[in-house]
Amino acid sequence: MSTKTQTKKWVYLFREGDRSMRDLLGGKGAGLAEMTKANLPVPSGFTITTEACNAYYAAGERFPDGMWEQTQAALKEIEERTGKRLGDAIQPLLVSVRSGGRDSMPGMMDTVLNLGMNRETLQGIAQASGNERFAYDAYRRFIQMFGRIVLGLEAEGFEKTLAAYKKKVGAALDTDLTTAHLQEISEQFLAIVQQHTKQPFPQDAHEQLRLAIRAVFASWNGKRAVDYRNFYGIAHNLGTAVNVVAMVFGNMGENSGTGVAFTRDPATGERKLYGEFLMNAQGEDVVAGIRTPLKIEQMSKIMPAQHQEIIKIAAGLEKHYRDSQDMEFTIEDGKLYMLQTRSAKRTAQAAIRMAVEMAGEGLITRAEALQRVEPLQINQVLLPRFGEGARKQAKLLAKGINASPGAASGKVVFDPNVAQAMGRKGESVILVRPETNPDDVHGMLEAKGILTARGGATSHAAVVARGLGKPCVAGVEGLAVEPERHRFEIHGTVVMEGEQISIDGTTGEVFAGSLPTTEPRLSEEKDLVTLLQWADGVRRLGVRANADYPRDAQRAVEFGAEGVGLCRTEHMFFEEERLPHVRRMILTATEATQLEAELAMAEAAANGTAEAKRALEAAREHVAESATVKEYQASLERLLAFQTEDFYGILLAMDGKPVIIRLLDPPLHEFLPRFEDLLVEVTTLRITGKDAKALREKEALLAAVEEMREANPMLGLRGCRLGLMFGAINQMQARAIYTAGCRLLREGKHPRPEIMVPLVGVAKELELVREEITRVGAEVQREFGVTLAMKIGTMIEVPRAAVTADEIAKHADFFSFGTNDLTQTTFGYSRDDAEGKFLLHYVERGILPNNPFQVLDRGGVGKLITMARELGLGANPKLEMGICGEHGGDPSSIAFCHQAGLDYVSASPFRVPVARLAAAQAALQGAARPDR
Amino acid sequence: MSTKTQTKKWVYLFREGDRSMRDLLGGKGAGLAEMTKANLPVPSGFTITTEACNAYYAAGERFPDGMWEQTQAALKEIEERTGKRLGDAIQPLLVSVRSGGRDSMPGMMDTVLNLGMNRETLQGIAQASGNERFAYDAYRRFIQMFGRIVLGLEAEGFEKTLAAYKKKVGAALDTDLTTAHLQEISEQFLAIVQQHTKQPFPQDAHEQLRLAIRAVFASWNGKRAVDYRNFYGIAHNLGTAVNVVAMVFGNMGENSGTGVAFTRDPATGERKLYGEFLMNAQGEDVVAGIRTPLKIEQMSKIMPAQHQEIIKIAAGLEKHYRDSQDMEFTIEDGKLYMLQTRSAKRTAQAAIRMAVEMAGEGLITRAEALQRVEPLQINQVLLPRFGEGARKQAKLLAKGINASPGAASGKVVFDPNVAQAMGRKGESVILVRPETNPDDVHGMLEAKGILTARGGATSHAAVVARGLGKPCVAGVEGLAVEPERHRFEIHGTVVMEGEQISIDGTTGEVFAGSLPTTEPRLSEEKDLVTLLQWADGVRRLGVRANADYPRDAQRAVEFGAEGVGLCRTEHMFFEEERLPHVRRMILTATEATQLEAELAMAEAAANGTAEAKRALEAAREHVAESATVKEYQASLERLLAFQTEDFYGILLAMDGKPVIIRLLDPPLHEFLPRFEDLLVEVTTLRITGKDAKALREKEALLAAVEEMREANPMLGLRGCRLGLMFGAINQMQARAIYTAGCRLLREGKHPRPEIMVPLVGVAKELELVREEITRVGAEVQREFGVTLAMKIGTMIEVPRAAVTADEIAKHADFFSFGTNDLTQTTFGYSRDDAEGKFLLHYVERGILPNNPFQVLDRGGVGKLITMARELGLGANPKLEMGICGEHGGDPSSIAFCHQAGLDYVSASPFRVPVARLAAAQAALQGAARPDR
Repeated sequence: MSTKTQTKKWVYLFREGDRSMRDLLGGKGAGLAEMTKANLPVPSGFTITTEACNAYYAAGERFPDGMWEQTQAALKEIEERTGKRLGDAIQPLLVSVRSGGRDSMPGMMDTVLNLGMNRETLQGIAQASGNERFAYDAYRRFIQMFGRIVLGLEAEGFEKTLAAYKKKVGAALDTDLTTAHLQEISEQFLAIVQQHTKQPFPQDAHEQLRLAIRAVFASWNGKRAVDYRNFYGIAHNLGTAVNVVAMVFGNMGENSGTGVAFTRDPATGERKLYGEFLMNAQGEDVVAGIRTPLKIEQMSKIMPAQHQEIIKIAAGLEKHYRDSQDMEFTIEDGKLYMLQTRSAKRTAQAAIRMAVEMAGEGLITRAEALQRVEPLQINQVLLPRFGEGARKQAKLLAKGINASPGAASGKVVFDPNVAQAMGRKGESVILVRPETNPDDVHGMLEAKGILTARGGATSHAAVVARGLGKPCVAGVEGLAVEPERHRFEIHGTVVMEGEQISIDGTTGEVFAGSLPTTEPRLSEEKDLVTLLQWADGVRRLGVRANADYPRDAQRAVEFGAEGVGLCRTEHMFFEEERLPHVRRMILTATEATQLEAELAMAEAAANGTAEAKRALEAAREHVAESATVKEYQASLERLLAFQTEDFYGILLAMDGKPVIIRLLDPPLHEFLPRFEDLLVEVTTLRITGKDAKALREKEALLAAVEEMREANPMLGLRGCRLGLMFGAINQMQARAIYTAGCRLLREGKHPRPEIMVPLVGVAKELELVREEITRVGAEVQREFGVTLAMKIGTMIEVPRAAVTADEIAKHADFFSFGTNDLTQTTFGYSRDDAEGKFLLHYVERGILPNNPFQVLDRGGVGKLITMARELGLGANPKLEMGICGEHGGDPSSIAFCHQAGLDYVSASPFRVPVARLAAAQAALQGAARPDR
Repeated sequence: MSTKTQTKKWVYLFREGDRSMRDLLGGKGAGLAEMTKANLPVPSGFTITTEACNAYYAAGERFPDGMWEQTQAALKEIEERTGKRLGDAIQPLLVSVRSGGRDSMPGMMDTVLNLGMNRETLQGIAQASGNERFAYDAYRRFIQMFGRIVLGLEAEGFEKTLAAYKKKVGAALDTDLTTAHLQEISEQFLAIVQQHTKQPFPQDAHEQLRLAIRAVFASWNGKRAVDYRNFYGIAHNLGTAVNVVAMVFGNMGENSGTGVAFTRDPATGERKLYGEFLMNAQGEDVVAGIRTPLKIEQMSKIMPAQHQEIIKIAAGLEKHYRDSQDMEFTIEDGKLYMLQTRSAKRTAQAAIRMAVEMAGEGLITRAEALQRVEPLQINQVLLPRFGEGARKQAKLLAKGINASPGAASGKVVFDPNVAQAMGRKGESVILVRPETNPDDVHGMLEAKGILTARGGATSHAAVVARGLGKPCVAGVEGLAVEPERHRFEIHGTVVMEGEQISIDGTTGEVFAGSLPTTEPRLSEEKDLVTLLQWADGVRRLGVRANADYPRDAQRAVEFGAEGVGLCRTEHMFFEEERLPHVRRMILTATEATQLEAELAMAEAAANGTAEAKRALEAAREHVAESATVKEYQASLERLLAFQTEDFYGILLAMDGKPVIIRLLDPPLHEFLPRFEDLLVEVTTLRITGKDAKALREKEALLAAVEEMREANPMLGLRGCRLGLMFGAINQMQARAIYTAGCRLLREGKHPRPEIMVPLVGVAKELELVREEITRVGAEVQREFGVTLAMKIGTMIEVPRAAVTADEIAKHADFFSFGTNDLTQTTFGYSRDDAEGKFLLHYVERGILPNNPFQVLDRGGVGKLITMARELGLGANPKLEMGICGEHGGDPSSIAFCHQAGLDYVSASPFRVPVARLAAAQAALQGAARPDR
């Protein structure tokens, strides 16, 4: 197909752009254009657009038609403005070629400085600057940088040569090298290039430019950049712009220098000019950190006029951009040039302080202040952390995946039972495992933090730890956990059980020894409290917490939760003192339920005849004498007592606020020992033939587990299906909830329990379970002689529930969208399998924009939610709706919930402040929200 | 809540009803009413409605308000018409109390005759009939029947007593008993009742009636009735009516009798009066089969007038009902009474013949004829069967679940490898297994039939057997399969390996020895051919076949398939000669793909520099020298050859018709040995320590399988995800399909291959796979120098595909709804787990109306299909759409497909004629079908 389209505009001079063109020119290009427009001192230059980058890739890594010609034309204008020419021996123009995408990706893409240097222009630079040494220094720097970045040579070769040379001539610092030295080094560098590329170093300046532009384009898809975008959720199809800027030199002598300045302290947010400055240096020297820079305040003594000028420009830029700026500048022989301005990166703490203070100063509105803080940053402010001093002194053992933020220190423990025992005695322990599984949860509950050798940000350890708000470092490469030897080894260091380590789940770092932590409280973070109050005034989504224990509920309230959106009763089942009763219940449930069903049938068949009476009698006797039924009932009795206490505690902590309690959800075999472990035990016992009794017991258990295990447990006997097969479990849970509520009512409290039925896909399921709950509830209320209001609702977590929501809504007071499972069933992805096996590949390849388990998939899952909401409200206008999957703590997903017209989100306690802010931002972004 | 509603009409006299009231009055009641209306000789009576039955259950097994009073009033009218009174000592009225639901459930519910007999009425009956012996016989029959059915006593007690008495008095037949004997037997029967119920036999006739009505209501929920409804898919909430009819007596002497008559032969469909007749007998004697009845023709000699009257009534009823009738009649002292007429049950063969002939006679239209045959009946006509004679002489070993219809004989074989070897040598074998799994498929392929001890109608064995069109009997209770002893045992009979058995998958029977089978051919079933031709003229849905092998495709064409709607390439992978190559490919795929990806990255990064060239060189060398890559490529080469042959064969068999070939779908670990088996082997080898080499190998394999196995394989790395992770597999399959097609083109054939991408959930998946297929296709077409038209489409089998069908349709030429998987993901049911664990319970309890894997769930899955169709057509008006799940052969689901506006259904070859008829019926039922 041949096209004859008008050639596109691929290149913009700085004077042609402005800040609104960030998508096209990248952040850096738009900033330079904006400063140019504001008549600030900016070197001449132009920007090749992000569209050109994309077109370059689309065409199989070729410059799009017209781009190179437009580049030449723009270069010509720079040459005219500067009076220099690229590659000219007398008046040579040197340029920098800088990457710059829409989003800042610091250090992730490539930049080439001093481009245009060659044997000839070298002389011109020497003459123009009157500084031959400077020219040679620039030359050798250029060869080194161009060689490394554009020609793909390893940095090491240059560095070793330089070091060897310095050693040979006895130079301690680079500045000790003379012109002659630098000349000789340049020659050696050129030889390196020749040797590795089998070609001479490109001397033609235009060819240098062409190659450098290609290299910058290529760096968009470099591994570092791709990884960075994956991590920060930046789309891979944006492309980078390329900025070609006339060089100015901060290394022209003692009247020159270069630095960076922030309008406010990026660490604390304090309002003062903050930055660093290096005399007689190029920007790369500041970045390289070889020489210690001066604080920007010190400039006031050395270069007072320029210092004043920067202060003035900084104030102007902050006012212009209405945000704190991060600026790069160079002073060339006394003249100040601004090389970059951009919104300053800042710590979470600084972001909050700046936002609140700027609103106080009238620089921005409160609405803007609310949008200046990334909701997830709030998380960091509230987590325990290691002091910077301690961190610097500590021995870093390893770095893994920062799976759950926060910091903790404690003794190394490998066995979850030991972790539990020590934890309960008040000792701080770090549970170290190859990986974790549900059998380890009791130990995780009592540990201060979790360290695993395997698994990533979505492993069991990570998910549980985030739920518990405990730090976790996962997937530490090279970590050999050897519980049988009571030690782990990492990169040659051996750490024995009982020794102290410290883990930082925010950074993924593991340190030897115990580092002191500080644990901030929300109430002490005054700026944050202010910001969240503003947020509460703006948001239209309610914010609840997912909390399984009274202590979680307590914390959630402190963080501003307006209720509990999800209390998972099965987490209580995993606790060590309960698990034996849970297992006893499970192993007796099928037979006991069968016997009870037979009794029920005999009761139903009783038509007054003697025959029927005798049959009934027999069935009653059968049930009454069955050891299995006795065990079943006894275990249910025990669990009833435990659960009543649990619910009492949570309802008390949330007094006056709604608490949604979900009935038992996971497949029962999750509570039993693993089939594979039993299989190995039984096989071993069979071969050794030593312990016949143990063999019989284990064989029986193996058979029971085999009977119960499932091909796809995610889609098996779980959720409300359990309670419909084993009615006694639902009755026990309903009784526990009603009993806890009634007891609190009698104590003058204001309990607001709600019961949630999981995994409903057919309206009749909810109808039947609801009947059963209501029946039990009536009994308990009669016993207590009180009336307890109770809402009964369901999770919408299979697609069928969403598309038949009108039928289901007739039996529901509320819907809670279980977006974890709904994502699994809508996509047909098992999270356990997908994340490890193909999902990351899908995201990298652009098949999916994000991991849908982290960011709610609007096109599929979101569409089903919207459909369910409309159908549900149509059938039951009073229906309350929220979400309680992990998405409830994800800002993008929260924005969706706002737009979709849901009533609330429910997130883990630590995510509650995040959700408050995200909900406010969603409201401020003014997206259409349907009325009820 | 108190209600003051008008009392409902619960009771209808026969003269108040008609045939249109079948739902309310049941089939029997409506028939009696209609005959009464037509002035046929029907005894007086009335019907208690099905609504009364439902109200009875709704009220906790109490008669609804007014029902008993209305019953009394109706009774009064009968009493007036007959001049007799219930319980009256002089002129006693006796009645029968008969069940009768909307749908015929022969023998599944209860009926009580002679109700009203007691010590007093006995005398009245004796006097009125002038036959004391008759009266006592009726009395003892009544006590026996009432005792068993209403009072719940066991039949055995009465029978033993009667037998003992007959022995004592030396009576060979019942008719040998005198009045005195019968009187004494009656007393003994009354004593039995007293003994077992601790109460005297109810003598009050109205109380008898009340209890009998309760008993009939109760029999609606009796186990037999519930099982029957489950089997035939009759809803459980319809209830039964109760017919109370004045008794007439066929046992009043030699001028009396009783019988059944059919207007056409129910076995063959031949048009002639067909039936049986018993002189001097009550209906129960005919059913009991104690005396051999006469053929109805013989009546012409014994009772010519009555015979003529029946012939006339029969002709009239057939004309009136426009269908063959099944009538019950009684002649009381020369007077004919019609007790029932209903549409006659008939064999599949008879149904087809009657339909075609009645249309020929002008009794019904062709459209009606098409609706007179149950589509599934066609299946039975086309399956191999055992001759009736042989069946009667054979030794029945056991009866199991009729898991896949048809009949087969062969030698017993336990090992699938042996089955395969013998089968290939042309020997007939029956594969007998405890249960089957995918490892057994190669043996199943070559066996004539499958017999398993465990598993039901949805077990692996059943599903595979149905797919293969082979008979299967599954879940045989008491069958002990002992392969290690080369035998199985069943109810005490031992059958050794190599002995002959015969299985009938239509009935679930297992016989000893080899029974001859007959295999009907469609072309020989003239009536069926005619009917299907009529169907083809009417239907608007296309009918294709699911066929994995050329022989299946061939059969599908014979059965009228218009193409292949689904060819599952993985079934070819399971064949024994291929499996080693498949396994080799799987075990090398990850590493080889990784190496190849590195090479591709090096190629992409090649920017002309020497450095990049060297990196590329190294990557190439790495790939070239890798033994893993070599193995991977070699196994793919082998598979390419196999697959090309497969596709060539199928395309040839379907020449000129479309053949949709699905790319590889199942998770790769399905092709590997089972993890659990390997775990036991490795554990054993570890403990015994005997074979270090074997241990190493098995450990490596175990590790590989562990790495690949998944928590929920149904939702894991499968479908198009495989081809996106391992591009070489897609390339191999695309190349095989194009090569087969191009070769056929060159041979002058008309191949119409289409490629189907499974499990797409994101449009980009299809886009990328399509690009790859198209690229390979272009290469192959260039090699052959021909142009092969190719449609590329996708399965819609996860909900996300349905709700984003507009995006997906842009890259698709067709959609095929994979309703098996779509049902799994829409409900969140794993079929493997759900059917065994809770689905049957759900259907029994009415939570679901049907098993959604058998009958398409319109409310959920159907809604998604409708949505996907609309979205898809909106984006791509040329899109073709069909379904290819098992539902494609289910008549109700086919009706849905018609209504939903799909273009075709695809079913297993044996279901193709079924689908042709079902599609015609759907069209005739005139449901709205959306336009394209």
